[in-house]
Formats: sequence, structure tokens, C-alpha cells
Amino acid sequence: MNVTIRGRSRHYRTVAFDRARNSVLLVEQRLLPHEFKIVATKNYRETARAITDMIVRGAGAIGATAAYGLAQGALAFRGNDLKKFPRHVETVYQTLKAARPTAIDPVNAMNEVRAAMRAGQTVEEQQALALAAAEEFANEDVRHCEEIGRHGAKLIRSGMRILTHCNAGWLAFVDIGTATAPMYAAQAQGKKFHVFCDETRPRSQGATLTAWELAQQKISHQIIADNAAGHLMQRGEIDMVIVGSDRTLGRTGEVANKIGTYTKAVLAKRHGIPFYVAIPLSTIDWNMRCGLDIPIEERHENEVLGAWGVPWKLKSQISNLKSRSVCVRVANPTSGARNPGFDVTPPELIAGIITPAGVFKPQELWPRRRELGFV
Amino acid sequence: MNVTIRGRSRHYRTVAFDRARNSVLLVEQRLLPHEFKIVATKNYRETARAITDMIVRGAGAIGATAAYGLAQGALAFRGNDLKKFPRHVETVYQTLKAARPTAIDPVNAMNEVRAAMRAGQTVEEQQALALAAAEEFANEDVRHCEEIGRHGAKLIRSGMRILTHCNAGWLAFVDIGTATAPMYAAQAQGKKFHVFCDETRPRSQGATLTAWELAQQKISHQIIADNAAGHLMQRGEIDMVIVGSDRTLGRTGEVANKIGTYTKAVLAKRHGIPFYVAIPLSTIDWNMRCGLDIPIEERHENEVLGAWGVPWKLKSQISNLKSRSVCVRVANPTSGARNPGFDVTPPELIAGIITPAGVFKPQELWPRRRELGFV
Repeated sequence: MNVTIRGRSRHYRTVAFDRARNSVLLVEQRLLPHEFKIVATKNYRETARAITDMIVRGAGAIGATAAYGLAQGALAFRGNDLKKFPRHVETVYQTLKAARPTAIDPVNAMNEVRAAMRAGQTVEEQQALALAAAEEFANEDVRHCEEIGRHGAKLIRSGMRILTHCNAGWLAFVDIGTATAPMYAAQAQGKKFHVFCDETRPRSQGATLTAWELAQQKISHQIIADNAAGHLMQRGEIDMVIVGSDRTLGRTGEVANKIGTYTKAVLAKRHGIPFYVAIPLSTIDWNMRCGLDIPIEERHENEVLGAWGVPWKLKSQISNLKSRSVCVRVANPTSGARNPGFDVTPPELIAGIITPAGVFKPQELWPRRRELGFV
Repeated sequence: MNVTIRGRSRHYRTVAFDRARNSVLLVEQRLLPHEFKIVATKNYRETARAITDMIVRGAGAIGATAAYGLAQGALAFRGNDLKKFPRHVETVYQTLKAARPTAIDPVNAMNEVRAAMRAGQTVEEQQALALAAAEEFANEDVRHCEEIGRHGAKLIRSGMRILTHCNAGWLAFVDIGTATAPMYAAQAQGKKFHVFCDETRPRSQGATLTAWELAQQKISHQIIADNAAGHLMQRGEIDMVIVGSDRTLGRTGEVANKIGTYTKAVLAKRHGIPFYVAIPLSTIDWNMRCGLDIPIEERHENEVLGAWGVPWKLKSQISNLKSRSVCVRVANPTSGARNPGFDVTPPELIAGIITPAGVFKPQELWPRRRELGFV
């Protein structure tokens, strides 16, 4: 998407590749929303560290980063030795895989790159095929998000007030995002609408990343405390909800997503407000049979006990806010916290799943599994 | 309630009076939970400023503060002039009334004090009656909270996991509190239970004040993000909800309380979890006919955009955390926020209203209005 820096607008992807420097280019997400910076990793080990250190996060974005990282590592190999080269590639693969051990996207992405490399006869050919496959992986991620936008934009009418939770925007993918894709597509069609961004405690991705994205795209929006959505729905001020998903069960239509998503779905149902989930097909889990089996990560209590931001000097200019985030302890220092990271929303609360292949009722995923890529 | 400082436990009220120094004693709530300090106001103007500056907050607490402040001002009058004295008292009254212009509690409290003073023939008699009336107002606040505790404790069984929202604890009253009263009473009866404190963004009164109170009383508790209650209910980890109320409509049983209360009530209803509201009878509004007429204060957006806490040095000792809160800007600096401060919960979501006169269905308030103090 476009980012405006000192009055000049330029297009960026969250993850890109600089062929001349053999470098992966990443939006440094830890500095957002207070500073926009592109990081160029010098080698695949730096790329792996960028995943580990959360410079880049989000399913599609870390998948593409790993794919590019594998190509970057392959391209750094000097010589024609067809025995040493696969061992080198294996080292690169394992290093990148270990960067975020619980994530499946980097592994899937790198497997695509490795499969493509097999067609090459020489080291040089395999290197070229690796980069081409990584580029294709990234481009496909963008195309999928564009398709989500095309289908989802039909649901948005001018004048609507849309609620979203957490960040399923372009920063979580290579570009465009999932929950945000229908908004960006509707905007391109000239529709005017307003977005409420849930703050999304404890990590505040809505107040930081989603709000920053929408501000860059000049989409009318306001941040609200996670507590406020129920009141706004009650007063008729929200017409639609769109969120992303970390894992959607193909067999049941249950949706796992950031903690708080379930609450918004319950509220939307009570108020007759349609609740949509936007996902790439790769997010569908065709095996699991019960949402209660989805492991819910208990994250560190300090996320709940504290908050992160830049020191707020009331008189400072907004454009000068470039200092790094600091952490403050908000809570009583002798109290602990529970911090479940995700929750599961049942299908009866979901009006539709917006996919690159169209909008489906959650119960339709399983009967239509063949066309949705069930393997 | 008891507060432990450097290993020594002592009983404090949120608001008290030091007759020897003619001084109102207040828990300095802006320093909590990081520092416990009692402020002694030198004169009624300082007492008014303590209300304005939020050293003291909460309906019962500011009512008692204003009552004591009026007595303090009356007692500072020198001489026997029965013409000058009422003019002086009027000045004190107006100064304290102006300290928090939208609040009704200080006015009601001071009217009781003024009414009591009328029985006095001399300045000295009226001064003594003023202080006695202020003391009686504070003691009555405590008795009401004790009665709420007595009735509410019957609802708590050992092993229960109770959710509460915001702070309706002893810091909001002269002592004991309302939502917390059943917990403190159940604890005194030897019952063991666990409390989840909603963080209660944007001002985080749950994570700061309620968690501090429960820690002082050694009640098992954990703070959760406001997003987490739905998930915990879904997994069967919450058995009961108790909250306070800023205004309860006697005619309809609707409850206005801190933003997010309505959301918790909707979730509790879905999961068959009883949702209770604990209130003093003075909180009941017998006139208003519709919850939609309750004015919902839109507070400053900076509360949502930022967070308050003490700088978090990981290696610092918890007991050394005495520095003042600082503010950090969490959100994207070019985004705005909506910040409704309260919401309204309809009676069908409420299992019972816990009052000093017993536990009532919200729909019972109006038919039983005579015994509940309807005038």
C-alpha cells in the first residue's frame, strides 16, 4: 500500500526483495506507528533474526519473508558444487524454520521454493528458480488479498460504519491484508465509510497498526477501547464487523482469532449486525474436528500488566514523535494476570467467510471443500 | 479496609476526619496502585481542590468528602456572629459544590449537613452539629456497604470464580465498597474464591484500584484484558459477575455503569452466568423513564490513545516502585478516538440488584419502591 513520508507518497510491500543487494526488505513493524522504516537484511541469518525479533509478523508476511530468505541464502552460495549446495540450502532452511518454530507459514512457503528448485540442473539454475518461486509466493499472497478485497467490497455500502479487531491488514501480509482488503477495494470504488478500530489489548495492534494503515490510506476511522463496541452497537452506530483469522476449521466453520473476537461476534449477533471473517485459503485447517481442540496460547502476563508507547509530551509536534516505545507498568505491582492470546468464534455467529474464492457461510466450507483447496 | 505498609497492617477509610487538626484525611488515589499515601487537607478550599483534582473519586467517597469539607469550613469560622456565619457556610457550600459540578452526591451530602445545622442556636452548636452530621453521613455509607456485603455474600460459594469490572470497591466509598462488599463479607465467612478483574480500559481502574484492593485484602485474583472475559466464560472459568453502578433506573431496572459493563452482561447471559449489580439505594434514579435518556459522557480521546503507568524497569524491586505515573502515547499519532465513558445494561441481562435492603430482580425495584426509599 502507499505510505506518505514528509508529504511524498510511495508504494511499499511489507516484504520485498532487492536483487542487486541480495537483501530482503522489511517494514520494521516494531517502530510503528511512531516511525516508518525499511530494514534490509544482509543475509539469511539476519532474515531469520528479523522473524524471531518480530520486525516482521503476520501469517502471509512471515511466509514470504522465509521464502525470500531461502532464496537469499541460496543466492549467496558461491561455486557450482552440486553436492555442497543442497547441504547449504538445508542449513538455510533449518535456520529460517527455527526462527518461529510454532508457525506453519514459513515452512509451507519454503517447501514451495524447494520444490521449484528441483527443476534446475545447475546451482545457478536452482538459484534463479528459488528466487522466482519466492517472488511467485509473494505475488500469490498479494493476488489472494486482492481477490478477498474484490469479493468483500460488494458487502460494503457507502455510509457504513465498520468495526474491525486487531490487525489483519497489509502489515500482516505482503500487501493489502485480509480484513482490510474489502475496505481498500471499496475505497478504490469511491465508497465512503467509517471504520472503528478496536484498540485490541493487551498488545494494542488495532490502535497501533490498523489505525496507522487506515490513516496512511486516508480512510475515515477512530480507535475505540475494546469495552466500547457493545455500547456503539446498542446505539446503532456499527453496521458491520470484519476481522481476520489465524485458523479457521474447515469441518466446523469455527474461527480462531485474536482474543476479543468472540466477544465482538456475540455482541454483533445480539444486535443483528453481520459479522464477517476475511481469510486466505491457506488459513483453513481441514483436519481438526472441534474448536475446543485449538490450542489457545497463554501469553506472558506482563502484556496485560503493562502498556507500550512513546512518552507523551503534550507540546511535541506529532511529526517529531520518533522515539522508541517504552513500557510502563499500568497494573497493581503485586497482582498477576491471565493472558489467553486467542479465542474461538462458533459458526452460528458468523454471517460469512470472505475468501479469495468468494464469500461462504461457515457451514459451507466443508461441503465445498474441493473447490476451496482441500487436499 | 486494612492496608499493609512495610509489613504492618492498619485500618483506613477512604475519607476520614481529623478533629484536632480540623482536616479531611483522604487516600491519595492518583498515586495508587504504586504508592499509598494519606493526604490531610488544611482547609475547605484544599478539600474542594482534592475533589476537583481527583485525589478522591467515587460516588460515596466524594459525598463524604464534601460533607466533611462543609463541616471543616464551618468549624474554621471564628466568633459568634449569627449573621456572618451562614454567609460563610454558604461560601463553603458553593466552593465544594463547584468542585465537581456534574456530581449529585456532594450536593445531597452537604444538604444533609446543612439541614442538621438548623437545630443549633449558636455558631458553636451549629459547628458541632455539622461535624456530627458529616460523621453520620460517612458512617451510614459504611453501614450501607456492610449490608450490601451481608446480602451479597449469600450468593458466593467457595470455589467460585467471580468477574468484576472497573472499581466499585472501598476506594469509591468511605469503606468496603459495593461490588467488592460481597467478596469481603464472603472472605470473612471463610469462603475461598477467585476474582478476575477486568483491566477496564481506557482508565484501567480494574487493573489499578480493584487489583490493589484485592491484593491488600489477600483475595485470590488475576487481572485480565477486557477482551478475555468472553473466552474464559466460554471455557467455563467464570461462575458469577458482580459490578457496581453509577445510576440505576428504578422504573425500568436499567443499569448505567462504566463502559464495557453491558458487554460483560451480554456474554454472561449467553453463558448462563448470573450477572449481579451491587448498589447503595442513593444510586437509584426514580424519575427517568428510559435508559436511552441517560446522558453518556463522551470523555477525552487521549484516555483511549494513551496509557498511564510507572516506567517498568525489569530489575527493579516491586517494593521500590514509588515513582509517579507517566503517560505514554500507545496509538497511532495521526488517529483520533471515540471515548464513551458509560453504557446501559437492560434488566433482562441482570440476575439481581444487590442493595442494602436485600437482593431484588431489576423489575422488582419499581413495585417495591416504597420500601426502597422512593420519595
